[in-house]
Amino acid sequence: MVTGLDPQTLEVGFDLPAQVGMDESEIQTPCLILDLDALERNIIKMGEYVKTHGMRHRVHGKMHKSVDVAKLQERLGGADGVCCQKVSEAEVFARGGIKDVLISNQVRDPFKLKRLAEIPKLGARTSVCIDDIANVAELSAAAQAAGTELECLVEIDCGAGRCGVDTPEQAVAIAQAIDTADNLKFGGIQAYQGDMQHLRTYAERKEKLDIAVAKAKQVVDALTEAGLKPELVTGGGTGSYYLESNSGVYNELQCGSYAFMDADYGRNLNQDGRRIDQGEWDNALFILTSIMSHAKADKAVCDAGLKVQSVDSGLPVIFGREDVKYVKCSDEHGEIQDPHNVLKINERLRLIPGHCDPTCNIHDWYVGVRNGKVEALWPVSARGKAF
Amino acid sequence: MVTGLDPQTLEVGFDLPAQVGMDESEIQTPCLILDLDALERNIIKMGEYVKTHGMRHRVHGKMHKSVDVAKLQERLGGADGVCCQKVSEAEVFARGGIKDVLISNQVRDPFKLKRLAEIPKLGARTSVCIDDIANVAELSAAAQAAGTELECLVEIDCGAGRCGVDTPEQAVAIAQAIDTADNLKFGGIQAYQGDMQHLRTYAERKEKLDIAVAKAKQVVDALTEAGLKPELVTGGGTGSYYLESNSGVYNELQCGSYAFMDADYGRNLNQDGRRIDQGEWDNALFILTSIMSHAKADKAVCDAGLKVQSVDSGLPVIFGREDVKYVKCSDEHGEIQDPHNVLKINERLRLIPGHCDPTCNIHDWYVGVRNGKVEALWPVSARGKAF
Repeated sequence: MVTGLDPQTLEVGFDLPAQVGMDESEIQTPCLILDLDALERNIIKMGEYVKTHGMRHRVHGKMHKSVDVAKLQERLGGADGVCCQKVSEAEVFARGGIKDVLISNQVRDPFKLKRLAEIPKLGARTSVCIDDIANVAELSAAAQAAGTELECLVEIDCGAGRCGVDTPEQAVAIAQAIDTADNLKFGGIQAYQGDMQHLRTYAERKEKLDIAVAKAKQVVDALTEAGLKPELVTGGGTGSYYLESNSGVYNELQCGSYAFMDADYGRNLNQDGRRIDQGEWDNALFILTSIMSHAKADKAVCDAGLKVQSVDSGLPVIFGREDVKYVKCSDEHGEIQDPHNVLKINERLRLIPGHCDPTCNIHDWYVGVRNGKVEALWPVSARGKAF
Repeated sequence: MVTGLDPQTLEVGFDLPAQVGMDESEIQTPCLILDLDALERNIIKMGEYVKTHGMRHRVHGKMHKSVDVAKLQERLGGADGVCCQKVSEAEVFARGGIKDVLISNQVRDPFKLKRLAEIPKLGARTSVCIDDIANVAELSAAAQAAGTELECLVEIDCGAGRCGVDTPEQAVAIAQAIDTADNLKFGGIQAYQGDMQHLRTYAERKEKLDIAVAKAKQVVDALTEAGLKPELVTGGGTGSYYLESNSGVYNELQCGSYAFMDADYGRNLNQDGRRIDQGEWDNALFILTSIMSHAKADKAVCDAGLKVQSVDSGLPVIFGREDVKYVKCSDEHGEIQDPHNVLKINERLRLIPGHCDPTCNIHDWYVGVRNGKVEALWPVSARGKAF
């Protein structure tokens, strides 16, 4: 068992936060750690849910960007492949052995189209979303040039007001174009409502999701009428999956954050008014940080600032501590109110990041811990893959 | 000259945004680009300023995290080494050939102390900040174990209220401890006021900086009285350098953002009431982005969201365009108001990021452009180096 990092072995690019077998106390901070017990509980729980409800679950790989986590979701949670947002991410998942990869986004750039059309050669069923009929010919040409088949989902705007077509007529027209295009297969519809996932109360979320379901149903009916009944009706996130799965319209979920949780999702309330991080999903992802200055009696400074997290959805929350509070974030520092001057230099804290997805995308490694020991060191395989 | 990326050569980890010699139109988006003319103008201008004012300039490498940019700052701007915030960053700069590296931060973790003490062996004069007398013995022991010398600056809190000692007496006590410790050299004081750099008016900034200068002078006087006249009095950023350099107290500056600029710094007003990005410093850093969906007539969606930028200091601003506006940022998308429906699919825009430092830290590459061609491809050498 390797314990302790040896500075004599430093190499250019040396930046491992830990080695398997180490004590948790030896992990270099700041870094991302995963509580493996909590992660497995979340994955198993969601796996049982989707099985019970007869849904497919295409886990959202853009959240963790990790082949290792995706494979754990397949193994313990029965995941039916992944979705992700970028061609370069899809390459990573396909190369890593994921056999069913959806890019739940538009691909329009000529070079990205070429790369996309090569992905089926890596052994993955490969699908992509379309919200503009002009994209059909582009995708067909790319797939023909590569000699592959791409599955295409029509993306509908079911309330978020961003990407996706608005009317059943537009959806049918695109589906027909896909259906008749060479090397493309019409796969169904993408109907993800991303704008309601973080509304705080169940009632607010349900109100928006009811609209999404109605819109998806309209499109499904119009497609069925046109002889193009969609095989997949896919969508749903951690803030809504129970609504899509009981809709009678959707047959596939795309949840991501349930596996790791974060501070902002945790503030969502479920149907009985409890926070979703109090019993529904456990915090599995933390930024491990150390106190590195305490020059003021009532303020400690930790080594986790803007370079290790995204604060777009608020500051991180210190896990398991009521006596100290993370109150300010600058490039390299976090300022922590410590009114009773209890924090010591080099003391470690676990921070629940405000928003998991863009936080994970900054880091190169996940350190998996269990019972105080490092059990896994997983690369954030698709980190920075933005193309 | 290589033009165009060949999908046949795709490898695991393939993620170069460009190749030298390409047309700018062929760069893969989203990525960071540097306008090399603007970058060189900024660097030369600051170089002339510090020379005229008889200051040393230790450029802040934590902003760009690039050995290539630091070397350009040495070559064109007469930079006297770099400062950075983390041991792992300092290793990258020292290995890259920078001969004078200050970690303008505290180092307390035992393993980080070991790594720090090895850096002088890479050929760099290595210095670090101290704000707790207990740290002196830790640094001395690490330097003795490594057989190296570390230069130590006493950090004073000159108004930001974060790290740094408060009183001249504390500063003198630490300086004396450094002076008598084996393998340490007392190098001077670190007096950076980070909390006033983004105050909008010159008058607001000057008010805070006058306090910082007075505090630094008190400490310098007390140290001189104690027979420990500091060789270096270092501090100053893009929002204050003209104040430190005319103070008669400071002799070294630590500017970073002047080289790249960003949207938040650009909103600062200089003494004559003009924005500092209107004549003082040019925008050299951009996120190059492409439009990838335009399903609503009045809204375009680009491929630059939270995974390619930090929005802690506000949303990015579209460079050179008054007719369209970046209004919302989600994980992978930017929503752009396009009231006249002028943006086309695959059209490219240059975004000025809200905050350069944490934005650069997400990316692996800088693409240097001039006259519409890619002239340089520089790694963000210390990306993610947070230890």
